[in-house]
Amino acid sequence: MRTRLGVAERDRVLVRGHDLTAELLGATTFTEMVGLILLGRRPSAGETRMLDALLVVLVEHGLVKPVVAARFVYSNAPESLQAAVAASLLGAGSRHLGSSEWCARMLQEAIAAFPDDTTDVIAARIVDDHERRGERIPGIGHRTHPDGDPRAVRLFELARETGTYGRHAELLEQVAASAGERRGRPLPVNVTGAIAAIASDIGFRWQITRGFALIGRTLGALGHIQEEMDEPISDELIRDIQASVSYEP
Amino acid sequence: MRTRLGVAERDRVLVRGHDLTAELLGATTFTEMVGLILLGRRPSAGETRMLDALLVVLVEHGLVKPVVAARFVYSNAPESLQAAVAASLLGAGSRHLGSSEWCARMLQEAIAAFPDDTTDVIAARIVDDHERRGERIPGIGHRTHPDGDPRAVRLFELARETGTYGRHAELLEQVAASAGERRGRPLPVNVTGAIAAIASDIGFRWQITRGFALIGRTLGALGHIQEEMDEPISDELIRDIQASVSYEP
Amino acid sequence: MRTRLGVAERDRVLVRGHDLTAELLGATTFTEMVGLILLGRRPSAGETRMLDALLVVLVEHGLVKPVVAARFVYSNAPESLQAAVAASLLGAGSRHLGSSEWCARMLQEAIAAFPDDTTDVIAARIVDDHERRGERIPGIGHRTHPDGDPRAVRLFELARETGTYGRHAELLEQVAASAGERRGRPLPVNVTGAIAAIASDIGFRWQITRGFALIGRTLGALGHIQEEMDEPISDELIRDIQASVSYEP
Amino acid sequence: MRTRLGVAERDRVLVRGHDLTAELLGATTFTEMVGLILLGRRPSAGETRMLDALLVVLVEHGLVKPVVAARFVYSNAPESLQAAVAASLLGAGSRHLGSSEWCARMLQEAIAAFPDDTTDVIAARIVDDHERRGERIPGIGHRTHPDGDPRAVRLFELARETGTYGRHAELLEQVAASAGERRGRPLPVNVTGAIAAIASDIGFRWQITRGFALIGRTLGALGHIQEEMDEPISDELIRDIQASVSYEP
Repeated sequence: MRTRLGVAERDRVLVRGHDLTAELLGATTFTEMVGLILLGRRPSAGETRMLDALLVVLVEHGLVKPVVAARFVYSNAPESLQAAVAASLLGAGSRHLGSSEWCARMLQEAIAAFPDDTTDVIAARIVDDHERRGERIPGIGHRTHPDGDPRAVRLFELARETGTYGRHAELLEQVAASAGERRGRPLPVNVTGAIAAIASDIGFRWQITRGFALIGRTLGALGHIQEEMDEPISDELIRDIQASVSYEP
Repeated sequence: MRTRLGVAERDRVLVRGHDLTAELLGATTFTEMVGLILLGRRPSAGETRMLDALLVVLVEHGLVKPVVAARFVYSNAPESLQAAVAASLLGAGSRHLGSSEWCARMLQEAIAAFPDDTTDVIAARIVDDHERRGERIPGIGHRTHPDGDPRAVRLFELARETGTYGRHAELLEQVAASAGERRGRPLPVNVTGAIAAIASDIGFRWQITRGFALIGRTLGALGHIQEEMDEPISDELIRDIQASVSYEP
Repeated sequence: MRTRLGVAERDRVLVRGHDLTAELLGATTFTEMVGLILLGRRPSAGETRMLDALLVVLVEHGLVKPVVAARFVYSNAPESLQAAVAASLLGAGSRHLGSSEWCARMLQEAIAAFPDDTTDVIAARIVDDHERRGERIPGIGHRTHPDGDPRAVRLFELARETGTYGRHAELLEQVAASAGERRGRPLPVNVTGAIAAIASDIGFRWQITRGFALIGRTLGALGHIQEEMDEPISDELIRDIQASVSYEP
Repeated sequence: MRTRLGVAERDRVLVRGHDLTAELLGATTFTEMVGLILLGRRPSAGETRMLDALLVVLVEHGLVKPVVAARFVYSNAPESLQAAVAASLLGAGSRHLGSSEWCARMLQEAIAAFPDDTTDVIAARIVDDHERRGERIPGIGHRTHPDGDPRAVRLFELARETGTYGRHAELLEQVAASAGERRGRPLPVNVTGAIAAIASDIGFRWQITRGFALIGRTLGALGHIQEEMDEPISDELIRDIQASVSYEP
């Protein structure tokens, strides 16, 4: 059995073959560390700027369910900051942030299966397949932002600026255009789709793309928990909830 | 009821008063975002370099208990990446990474209570108080690194380089020196102590200092979970455990 | 290294020395299993009736914070029932259900420290100590039920009926009476206090008394999650919350 | 918005229309409460005996991954019993205990889709379908117990004794027989399959059948955590793990 990640020795800690103290601390940003840990290499400057955007974009989205869950857990168990953050992460599931995983899988498997096809041919095939199976295409459409998710637009713009825009991003944009045309209404790429496509172009496997949301939301949860320390609203929220739900056995 | 953190509107997301798409994406690193969310302001360049080190330093420490827990949960529930990461965070408790919280509390409360005393006077009082109560001083001493935690030394060095070394760091170094003298053996500052002191000097309240570990370990857990996808060791580990523990009802 | 609990062999599973299939299944209720696992012995008939009440009493208390957290997590991650239940358990902390632990500790340590004193003498000492330190006494008083928690009254009644009422229960009732007298208003035993006292009389150590709440609330969370499948209210609840909290950066 | 489960009023708690204190405490076992909460009715005596077996059967299975995860989390965060239990539940995923959910789904959907077919016809269709799609049939076969899971045999025996054996159980036994015949080696029903079939016969929907494992494993985790308090083995286990895994960057 082996690990390639790291080891703690008596007088040093090694990470991916680097001495943590001598080589990494002070010389590596957290975002570069994301590359080192998950890609096994330091990302380029352009990739790092893009990764920063992928990490920043999901940090905060107002009072979504996971942050309310984190506030509720914290107010019951303030001795356990980590439990409140963990409760928040548990809400990053298939119907919330997890769709980036499915979108990345769809893109990576389609490109791997048809390496010689152009992306518009692959896009048409993806839209056909989903239509035939009656399934929603992951990574496009958004309830809060039906006219287009401004975060996704900006992420693709940044991907072009930073040289990280590649075949996966191109494919997803063509899927969105093609699906929108068929349905007769715009179905723009959403933020989890953009993250999935750009992360795929940088080299992340689809199974780990949800990680950007998990890192971002760890910070987001910490923000809400800290606010709950100063201006606790969870007691009033739960009373409102109890007052608005009737008991009908 | 109100929040100061963020809101998702129909065509924009606001974070701490900034338009996420127009102002933050592409212009803000994740580490700067840590400052914006938790301090309510963009950190300076020196502070950002220091914050990067505080976030990077705990990412990876080999096969510690929380990452093994994450691997075990993942191998049972691969459909739920977030649950494996959450299990890892749950292990950031009072005996593992949580001591940064207690150390930061000790430093912040002591400095707030005696604003006019010099740090060496405060340090002597802290060591006396703990000795009288028979309590361990948080933030000093380490089992794996008894001769001194190289990570802590480097963090203080960086604090001086980046202009973030202040009264809390000074106080902790004096506490460690004074406690070591009394016990007749070195009790150097450990990594969670250094994080606590430097984060306090930058302006983080003690209740949130464990957050650096939580962000770092979210990435660390993702690394181990990804490795478990390629080179699964959890089945063999659990068989070894079962073979080494005898059943004696 | 050893365990006294159980082992899975090729053709049988042993639990506390009993063959699970041949001896326990069909012959042991879940509540008796609670005794077998946590006390190391089958409880008597009276103890079992009492344990049933301790397990049943906390199952359901309306839309409290942990069950709302469970509903929010489930609606985001319906593929992961266990994560929603886990989020609910994370809310069983020091300010919610965890106080049973502190109450049991107080009772067990006081009785162990003064084996020869009568419980009224010990009760007076406990009330004095808490008054001097300015600390709330765990296990008495309740916000939702200020005039007395009917569940606690019934639990003590059952303890007398089942022969499980002992010195810990007596002590807590005297603590409540004495504290109420001092404050000039009733401070009746609350439900977590009654659980703590009765569980202590049956022989559970204080560190595990929170377990009754955890088992009960696992079932309670399952009930709410199942209801969320049929009559989802979490989407409407979160919209109400978002509408009632203003953004003021 | 409404709930049918319960409400906490000023001087009483109602659960499924019953006064908790006056009607349920002392008169309802925890296992009957499982029926009341999840089926909406008190189970019969036979059903209750069967439900007890379904709850008891998964409590303890030796040092499986989730209980080791619980021990690791507890030893790092002993202030948070609930977090260690939660970590254990997070390991009840698709590859461990979650298969009861899939098995119950398969049985319930097949019987609902073909109400007029005999179970042997439906069984043959299920085996064909899985063979054609190259998929494993959930609920049959077991690594630790290749010759037959004694727990499953006993559960079916009890189902017959208690009058809870019905079409779902019959169907699963025929599926196992038919699949074993095709593969030329026995593929007996395993414990999660038996739980799924019997729970389906009693009237539980497939989406909640994992709940039996979650309740049982909450107790199982408490047992291991309590043992860890007295005879801590997690420090030695983690050292063994670290010694047996080599670092090869």
